[in-house]
Amino acid sequence: MNFDAILAEIAYEILPYKLMGEVPTYIPELSNINPDKFGMSIHTMHGNIYSIGDSFEKFSIQSISKVFSVSLAYSIVGENIWKRVGVEPSGTRFNSLIQLELEQGIPRNPFINAGAIVVCDILLSLLQNPKEDYIQYVRRITGIPSIDYNYTVVASEQATGYRNAALVNFMKSFGNIQNNPDAVLDLYYHACSIEMTCQELSRAFILFANQGYLYDSNEYILTRKQTKRINGLMQTCGFYDEAGEFAFRVGLPGKSGVGGGIVAACPKEFTVAVWSPRLNKKGNSVIGMKALELLTDKTGISVF
Amino acid sequence: MNFDAILAEIAYEILPYKLMGEVPTYIPELSNINPDKFGMSIHTMHGNIYSIGDSFEKFSIQSISKVFSVSLAYSIVGENIWKRVGVEPSGTRFNSLIQLELEQGIPRNPFINAGAIVVCDILLSLLQNPKEDYIQYVRRITGIPSIDYNYTVVASEQATGYRNAALVNFMKSFGNIQNNPDAVLDLYYHACSIEMTCQELSRAFILFANQGYLYDSNEYILTRKQTKRINGLMQTCGFYDEAGEFAFRVGLPGKSGVGGGIVAACPKEFTVAVWSPRLNKKGNSVIGMKALELLTDKTGISVF
Amino acid sequence: MNFDAILAEIAYEILPYKLMGEVPTYIPELSNINPDKFGMSIHTMHGNIYSIGDSFEKFSIQSISKVFSVSLAYSIVGENIWKRVGVEPSGTRFNSLIQLELEQGIPRNPFINAGAIVVCDILLSLLQNPKEDYIQYVRRITGIPSIDYNYTVVASEQATGYRNAALVNFMKSFGNIQNNPDAVLDLYYHACSIEMTCQELSRAFILFANQGYLYDSNEYILTRKQTKRINGLMQTCGFYDEAGEFAFRVGLPGKSGVGGGIVAACPKEFTVAVWSPRLNKKGNSVIGMKALELLTDKTGISVF
Amino acid sequence: MNFDAILAEIAYEILPYKLMGEVPTYIPELSNINPDKFGMSIHTMHGNIYSIGDSFEKFSIQSISKVFSVSLAYSIVGENIWKRVGVEPSGTRFNSLIQLELEQGIPRNPFINAGAIVVCDILLSLLQNPKEDYIQYVRRITGIPSIDYNYTVVASEQATGYRNAALVNFMKSFGNIQNNPDAVLDLYYHACSIEMTCQELSRAFILFANQGYLYDSNEYILTRKQTKRINGLMQTCGFYDEAGEFAFRVGLPGKSGVGGGIVAACPKEFTVAVWSPRLNKKGNSVIGMKALELLTDKTGISVF
Repeated sequence: MNFDAILAEIAYEILPYKLMGEVPTYIPELSNINPDKFGMSIHTMHGNIYSIGDSFEKFSIQSISKVFSVSLAYSIVGENIWKRVGVEPSGTRFNSLIQLELEQGIPRNPFINAGAIVVCDILLSLLQNPKEDYIQYVRRITGIPSIDYNYTVVASEQATGYRNAALVNFMKSFGNIQNNPDAVLDLYYHACSIEMTCQELSRAFILFANQGYLYDSNEYILTRKQTKRINGLMQTCGFYDEAGEFAFRVGLPGKSGVGGGIVAACPKEFTVAVWSPRLNKKGNSVIGMKALELLTDKTGISVF
Repeated sequence: MNFDAILAEIAYEILPYKLMGEVPTYIPELSNINPDKFGMSIHTMHGNIYSIGDSFEKFSIQSISKVFSVSLAYSIVGENIWKRVGVEPSGTRFNSLIQLELEQGIPRNPFINAGAIVVCDILLSLLQNPKEDYIQYVRRITGIPSIDYNYTVVASEQATGYRNAALVNFMKSFGNIQNNPDAVLDLYYHACSIEMTCQELSRAFILFANQGYLYDSNEYILTRKQTKRINGLMQTCGFYDEAGEFAFRVGLPGKSGVGGGIVAACPKEFTVAVWSPRLNKKGNSVIGMKALELLTDKTGISVF
Repeated sequence: MNFDAILAEIAYEILPYKLMGEVPTYIPELSNINPDKFGMSIHTMHGNIYSIGDSFEKFSIQSISKVFSVSLAYSIVGENIWKRVGVEPSGTRFNSLIQLELEQGIPRNPFINAGAIVVCDILLSLLQNPKEDYIQYVRRITGIPSIDYNYTVVASEQATGYRNAALVNFMKSFGNIQNNPDAVLDLYYHACSIEMTCQELSRAFILFANQGYLYDSNEYILTRKQTKRINGLMQTCGFYDEAGEFAFRVGLPGKSGVGGGIVAACPKEFTVAVWSPRLNKKGNSVIGMKALELLTDKTGISVF
Repeated sequence: MNFDAILAEIAYEILPYKLMGEVPTYIPELSNINPDKFGMSIHTMHGNIYSIGDSFEKFSIQSISKVFSVSLAYSIVGENIWKRVGVEPSGTRFNSLIQLELEQGIPRNPFINAGAIVVCDILLSLLQNPKEDYIQYVRRITGIPSIDYNYTVVASEQATGYRNAALVNFMKSFGNIQNNPDAVLDLYYHACSIEMTCQELSRAFILFANQGYLYDSNEYILTRKQTKRINGLMQTCGFYDEAGEFAFRVGLPGKSGVGGGIVAACPKEFTVAVWSPRLNKKGNSVIGMKALELLTDKTGISVF
């Protein structure tokens, strides 16, 4: 399939959407981004890479890190992880504090903030040097040793993260946080602040398109079954309250971040990452969603 | 792949689950079923059929009919259908009346009762002879002219369906029902009362595994894009508040019914229907869920 | 106390509020009212009556009838009534269907629609000739035999009452309605359609200012304890989601209706009824609320 | 009226309830109390005092302090206070985090935790020496200079108050907290930790029975109108999700605390405080509620 031509068509067809959406302002450090950025990278299972636009430029991966967090914790503790966090979509316009209360401090899934914070609490109890071990894990699954935290973003999130402070204290009151709330948030904010390019992100998702296995390093990061399960989770929960829309229009398991990135995997076929900072009201990249919809429509390749 | 052997293994491995769950009693007519029934049929895209157990016995398809309803309405009115019903998982333990109120009478998706009732309202406005046209549609996509309503079940549902009466009147108060509430419920209950076997159901889902196309009759029932979208919807919304669990454990788009049936499609690979009347607390067949999980684990074939 | 002078002052001081609020349109028959109507009547425990404006003109009492319904049922069945309906404020902007679901079909109190519908169901089981007995009860506590239903309003409510149909069917699905849903709504709509003047309403509330006793007929309608309880209920629940505001600004137990009427009782002191059709967003008469606030501020007489 | 005899009757009639309810354990320091304690004091507007049982023993007033907090803030900033906190009952079994989210960080009323925390934030901005000024205010309205904080209770609350930490951070994320969250909680916990006897509490509520005026010091603590409003608030919101029950059974404005105390005012008649540590499921003293119900039933004196 001629992915270069398809990427060029997509880059042209998204032009009418260029000014739609808004760059979020609640994390001050992220609001300085040039809103017109656009990059897209495809990594096929044959080992070919196709890129267009600003796909070599680093951006803040934000909630995409939630996939790395849960993969790392799941690979260590196995199915026990689901005692502390669920696998169902949150499915309500109202964010997760309401459900947290109704469901006694057990977050609906690991891809909402509350769920990812619980996963960070689990990692904090498991890892020797949590922040160091975490970034090493991301470097390992990408094979790219230069990936790192952005400490200015960490500081910016810590200074304004009252809602996350509410979440972690709320879950602590239900007994679902074991460590010190500030320490848990520190790891969480570090994970969110990781910077990667579209190329690097598409590489990081190879394991999800490849049943957990990495050719380059010849190792299983996740078992086949675990990989199926994380993909299922991304499909139903990866896009906040727009997971249905994404499954419906795009038809790939994936994960978005408020930095404007989206990354998705088509098992046995390819991985794809796209970046455009302007977000819709549900917090997902307007152009990112459209570009991926065009990709699966044009190629006829999706999981469905 | 030796599906006969796999079915035999599954039939053996589900034995420890035989007594788990309960046959629902709220539709009196359905509570008379023998709870030990078990059938399973696989229909591959090569045209082979594999069956085990009571797979030639008819049962009440109940909510599985919601897939037929939305497919028929979607194929007639196109994307406009989504103005009246959403595409997001309901994702709350509390059923849909709460969300209906918060979201002004627009049901979250066509696979919860409220959504399917709206779809029946749409069909009522579109079809010449609604009940006749509806059953003809099901006969057409299966190629089986003997499929029919069970009128005893219709009467049983009508006599006890106060909650559905609440739903249709509630949506009418928001202006999202155009026809007479009783007429809408009448069509809805007829659709739910259709009886089919596992073999027939696996046949009915071929179009979802085959991009909307039926070889036998050489026709497109849905476009490729519409098929992708219905599959995406089934993946995120097909199992009430257990859609995440099903995506996670099974990894196939599908739909369950309180009659104990579940049917799923693996695009380009196969369709599968399973039947066992005992339900878990979320309203899905205990053995049905388990059998499908075993199927995708054993074959390594799922959409993820 | 010179109530004539106080009423004159109030009639002057409400002028700036004359155009605020809206006449509701969802019951077509009620929307034809002249929105500029204003009447107010005070009935002291010494037997004096003070009136101003359109206080001899009949209007639809609507939800004020809920007080009559619960008083009648309570006087017959006693404390058992509280097994089927609660005594707590609903206290949410979202109306009662949400709480009904969370609380398994038991309405929060008898002054929200759901609660009043349950009370009508109770009356339907208790009374020989429900509609006849009901209106006789209202005539008895007022001593005014000409009070009657407005059948045009009944018909108008029945033609548009889909939300009430949702409520009664929903509660029936939880087992908290014993009679036929349509019959229950019929009694409910008749009660709402009763027409009374401010003078008549202030008279009807004497029993609540007088520990349940009527001098004219020399009889107890309610016991002293029952009267205290109904007053307590009106104080905390009589104004939908504005009960706090009314207790706070006015400080009297009372009840409002969407016909623009409000009636209140100050035990041992007086009763008061006011009428002005324009409603605020919470469904209470703008001028009615203001006039009563002025009354308790000017006289220094309230329960607090 | 012979209040001594009435108190003796009440002390006898509550005996069957002595073992009902539980002493709460979530604030460790409070769980050490002798659960059998019972005291009750009445202070009439004629200046007579009647007491029985352990009415000279100090206990933790806990949420009763919320009345002092809002009175102090209201007397300084006037009606502007209601821009930051509402006056409606919360009216849901689910506690206030859900409503806080739906209502954008504005607590429903000053007597739920979230509301009292906002009031403490207001006081922190207004007072020179917040903790010193606060306790002086309580001493002033009681005329008892020995009233003080219990610092062991403060420490115990701080060590376990994750839910309050969630509340203050959540409201900060909505912009409804101006000061540092920890400083706000520090003042809040101090207020809760104040210790008083039944005698002292009944004295502290004289202003609410006396239109804001204190004879002893010849001063207005609140205006007549402000007093009416605080009483109205206590009536509709003073007992968590049992305000309706309290208005219904007792019929007095009042406030309860998890330390087992309840204090209420009957304007122009008397104030009354009662203490018994075992709480019902709604968090109110079982015997306290019963004793006050008996008091208004026996005397026939309530606001209704």
